[in-house]
Amino acid sequence: MAQLIDGRATAEKVYAQLRGDIAELNARGVTPGLAVVLVGEDPASRAYVRSKDKMCRNLGLHSVKLELPAETTQEELLARVEGLNRDPAIHGILVQSPPPKHIDEAAIVRALDPAKDVDGFHSMNVAKLALGDSSGFVPCTPLGCQRLLVESGVAISGAHVVVLGRSMIVGKPMAMLLMQKGKAADATVTVVHSRTRNLPEITRTADIIIAAIGQAHFVKAEHVRDGAVVIDVGINRVDDAASERGYRLVGDVAFAEVEPKAAAITPVPGGVGPMTIAMLMSNTVKACRQQAAADR
Amino acid sequence: MAQLIDGRATAEKVYAQLRGDIAELNARGVTPGLAVVLVGEDPASRAYVRSKDKMCRNLGLHSVKLELPAETTQEELLARVEGLNRDPAIHGILVQSPPPKHIDEAAIVRALDPAKDVDGFHSMNVAKLALGDSSGFVPCTPLGCQRLLVESGVAISGAHVVVLGRSMIVGKPMAMLLMQKGKAADATVTVVHSRTRNLPEITRTADIIIAAIGQAHFVKAEHVRDGAVVIDVGINRVDDAASERGYRLVGDVAFAEVEPKAAAITPVPGGVGPMTIAMLMSNTVKACRQQAAADR
Repeated sequence: MAQLIDGRATAEKVYAQLRGDIAELNARGVTPGLAVVLVGEDPASRAYVRSKDKMCRNLGLHSVKLELPAETTQEELLARVEGLNRDPAIHGILVQSPPPKHIDEAAIVRALDPAKDVDGFHSMNVAKLALGDSSGFVPCTPLGCQRLLVESGVAISGAHVVVLGRSMIVGKPMAMLLMQKGKAADATVTVVHSRTRNLPEITRTADIIIAAIGQAHFVKAEHVRDGAVVIDVGINRVDDAASERGYRLVGDVAFAEVEPKAAAITPVPGGVGPMTIAMLMSNTVKACRQQAAADR
Repeated sequence: MAQLIDGRATAEKVYAQLRGDIAELNARGVTPGLAVVLVGEDPASRAYVRSKDKMCRNLGLHSVKLELPAETTQEELLARVEGLNRDPAIHGILVQSPPPKHIDEAAIVRALDPAKDVDGFHSMNVAKLALGDSSGFVPCTPLGCQRLLVESGVAISGAHVVVLGRSMIVGKPMAMLLMQKGKAADATVTVVHSRTRNLPEITRTADIIIAAIGQAHFVKAEHVRDGAVVIDVGINRVDDAASERGYRLVGDVAFAEVEPKAAAITPVPGGVGPMTIAMLMSNTVKACRQQAAADR
């Protein structure tokens, strides 16, 4: 039986620490503020934005939810972002992805003040991660995976980590984060993807597997060696007539067959998901602390 | 017997192509210009700068060699860089590393116009590489390694590449370059380093080994599987009483014992070295072409 890595409980631990940090900032007359910008009416995006707003309020953060109509122009959106860049009550800005098709998302990211880019997608933050400069912001999902490993007592230094997937949101920043020098890093990292030959042979050499390939139940028992730690980033919908909604959410890992081989494994839901939002809150508090220090 | 990958011959192929590109630019009234800035009298740095200047002249590039005294201040150096940023005859700028200790090298790199940063060290170019944006500049040594593989007919797509070393000059950009999507890439990449456990076991799974760990003869026969391709980035001095200079240059690979197992291998010298300077010329021509296009 694998140790079940509980993302909800770990996120609560993060929140307990953040409450202390926020109280300290409050004592200095500062309240961290997060602005979440949503363009359009995509129901999944609306749900994400709602849960981020709720978590901010729960922690006592200043939360601004900017819901713009689907027909908002690029110029209008840029003007909003620039307004938030200048707003001293806002320390973190997140533009919910994906925006409507007529919006140039890369240009929006470029317009963000890197000091408020709590998603870690701005070039300046991408470069800081590559350079090992900890003053930048790391994308929330890989940051959450790293924190889950640390809080679960998994040794990262010297371990062979195989990351499945090479997206800019998870795979690549995950690799950069764990291969750098220092605490909670110093791993040997391999990135595998759709073009990889002999994929199961490579994943079987991993001490830690991080699955972010976006395919339901891709990682099977044959991919995992006995005693590996398995972190499942995937959130995939599969049809399920037995469910009220007609579908259920499953990870990139075939949990039932992998769990007996693993030393530790995250469930979906309740694994990486809660950590992603916890890291967004953590990045917002970090942004606030940095901006408060810069103002003095 | 391994195929010997000849860096000098491959560099000549690159130069032949570049001469065509330069002739085209000349026909449009443009001559690519490279400025190399050297602070201090380090003999190795002086030799590097001389060979870059010589290669520029050989190709008919406009070459500016700026040799500043060791006591040049940070402010003076920044002013020089800013002057070169504004100079329309200069398309590429390189500040020879390492500068004297009183110079903040990171601040100098930040001051470079990213469009003229032919070394690929500016944050903007680091981020473009991570994002797979080919408009940026890739550091010359990893770019030269990739080109050597391509020109030698080594298949990169789907291959397992193990990079030894995680520096920002070679290891990390090498990994980013080969793991991205597209031509001459799509590799499965592993980065190993001083903290890696069971290093020989991991390097033996490689189709392609790129050694950039900075230790003479680190890669031995036991690290290499039969038929692997071995690229040796290392340039290490070892004492040699038989040599006039008292030392000779050797790579990170124990050539004599690795060569019989490898399908193809680079020598040191005459492997990666000549490609690094060829890629500097190539980046300068690319910078010129981009700046000429932006001016129209």
